[in-house]
Amino acid sequence: MKIVIDAMGGDNAPSVTVEGAIEAVKSYDVNIILTGNQPMIENELAKYDYPREKIEIIHCSEQITNEDKPVISIRKKKDSSMVVGLKLVKENKADAIISAGNTGALLAGGLLLLGRIKGIDRPALAPVYPTTKGISVLIDGGANADCKPRNFLEFGVMGSIYAEKVIGIKKPKVCTVNIGIEEEKGSDVVKAAHNLCKDASFNFKGNVEARDIPSGYADVILCDGFTGNVILKLTEGLASSIFGLLKEEFVKNTFRKIGALLLKSGLRDFKKRFDYTEYGGAPFLGVNGVLIKAHGSSDGKAIKNAVRQAIKFVDNNIIEDITTEITSLGVDTLE
Amino acid sequence: MKIVIDAMGGDNAPSVTVEGAIEAVKSYDVNIILTGNQPMIENELAKYDYPREKIEIIHCSEQITNEDKPVISIRKKKDSSMVVGLKLVKENKADAIISAGNTGALLAGGLLLLGRIKGIDRPALAPVYPTTKGISVLIDGGANADCKPRNFLEFGVMGSIYAEKVIGIKKPKVCTVNIGIEEEKGSDVVKAAHNLCKDASFNFKGNVEARDIPSGYADVILCDGFTGNVILKLTEGLASSIFGLLKEEFVKNTFRKIGALLLKSGLRDFKKRFDYTEYGGAPFLGVNGVLIKAHGSSDGKAIKNAVRQAIKFVDNNIIEDITTEITSLGVDTLE
Repeated sequence: MKIVIDAMGGDNAPSVTVEGAIEAVKSYDVNIILTGNQPMIENELAKYDYPREKIEIIHCSEQITNEDKPVISIRKKKDSSMVVGLKLVKENKADAIISAGNTGALLAGGLLLLGRIKGIDRPALAPVYPTTKGISVLIDGGANADCKPRNFLEFGVMGSIYAEKVIGIKKPKVCTVNIGIEEEKGSDVVKAAHNLCKDASFNFKGNVEARDIPSGYADVILCDGFTGNVILKLTEGLASSIFGLLKEEFVKNTFRKIGALLLKSGLRDFKKRFDYTEYGGAPFLGVNGVLIKAHGSSDGKAIKNAVRQAIKFVDNNIIEDITTEITSLGVDTLE
Repeated sequence: MKIVIDAMGGDNAPSVTVEGAIEAVKSYDVNIILTGNQPMIENELAKYDYPREKIEIIHCSEQITNEDKPVISIRKKKDSSMVVGLKLVKENKADAIISAGNTGALLAGGLLLLGRIKGIDRPALAPVYPTTKGISVLIDGGANADCKPRNFLEFGVMGSIYAEKVIGIKKPKVCTVNIGIEEEKGSDVVKAAHNLCKDASFNFKGNVEARDIPSGYADVILCDGFTGNVILKLTEGLASSIFGLLKEEFVKNTFRKIGALLLKSGLRDFKKRFDYTEYGGAPFLGVNGVLIKAHGSSDGKAIKNAVRQAIKFVDNNIIEDITTEITSLGVDTLE
């Protein structure tokens, strides 16, 4: 299997992308193609001992930055590490691509270069969401701010297959995020989506209120990309605010300082449960190719785990499964 | 000033509603009308010493429960504590009403019995949102799942006046919740709303990402009721999950147990910062009368604080201010 890593994508590229590639080829039966600035990549590679035949570099003269406009940069920067990587997947010269670069550009590039799976109207991002029970999959994590009811059905099919085959959740419980658990509650789009999902082949369990998301009530959390973004970012902001406030309270006097010291390992163990790097990245489900968006601040371990995730994705023929399932549902005939 | 308390509304009625009424008449220059089952209310009142002339009971033979359908119960249960209370405000026999009862019924009752302020298309709930900086006002907290762009403008006007005059935030910063801070980001409705708000008289500061809500970046958080509900409930669920997990980690060994003991007061101080009972309830802004929805699980202190909030609301002529402002904006001419 051959996996491309966009070596120039992310806050700490190419040092962490190269580190992740090295760790991956040492751990898995995989070949890595690194796209990007050859001298810079070679400079990083020189720091490691590794099986040289398993890593290949394809030099690219350009780079898409976080400041670049998504569609324009994909069209104009034809020799960027991201575009070159996507083309390798499109031309079947690689099985998957991982990038920690500009999210908007990567999604646009996925749509423009890989295209959509037949029957899928809107590909969607599917990040994991850590819960008190384990992890859930949230879809859409932000690719489509506005969604039609049929898109929720597509998200359900894709999220369910991914959660089962890649994350390993058996018969995942799929729920629409709504403002009440009753069927008649919610916005017009979510009500219609709920109605469509009732007859779907996946394990649809109705609505989930946002209050019950952190406890892992739903294995697959269905929502439009606007709501998904709000859920993901609010979780991030709230966790960081709560820790900030706790820290303030915990240093207010000597007793508390000693208490906090005794709890240091407990706090560390707690934080580990929310460590996104464990899970790799978020797949862009519904495009005709395996595309994984890693977090911009990914470290080497996160990149390595994204490689593991991509391998599982390819090995389990996720794209074929989605294609079969979506065709049998006849989603195409819906508005 | 005369304020009605729906004595039968809430999880612990009428004991906490009566307790709140007693505390209120002792603390503020206010008269309270308690609507509900007279024998039950008298039974509770008998437990206290209080200035008897300041509390009046109006007996009602019916009660709206949490299981009742909103509009139907308002239409059919004409002698319920909620409907009788709302009519007192409508007929100017009372200045405000507080209820901890069925939210849907209360909103429906507000709309049907009090009507809307001229120029307001959609009244909205405006709960406070505790942040690391202090408190913000979120509007809409769940009254309208689907919103048009003009509704955001109305929410901005109402939320801004309420935050300034009742909560006491000077020149509150108003922001639309969006998936990015850039103007061109987001759903079609939010983009159009952003455009309308730019020319508004309130202190509009563009978009806020959900990540920055807990730190208090926006004093007035504008969103549709679907998003508002997701923000409020996710915050509740996440805070409770985080505390549950911390507790688990903190009892795993003796060192940690001692540490947790030393931090007990710190954790209590921390929780106090998120104590909703401090702030009373959420006003239903945009109806033609002062209507405050208290939390279903309110205690006596929360009811008392809702009375304080209602007094401030009336004293500051919030409804007149909203009417003037909304008329000058000419929102009525918008779609």
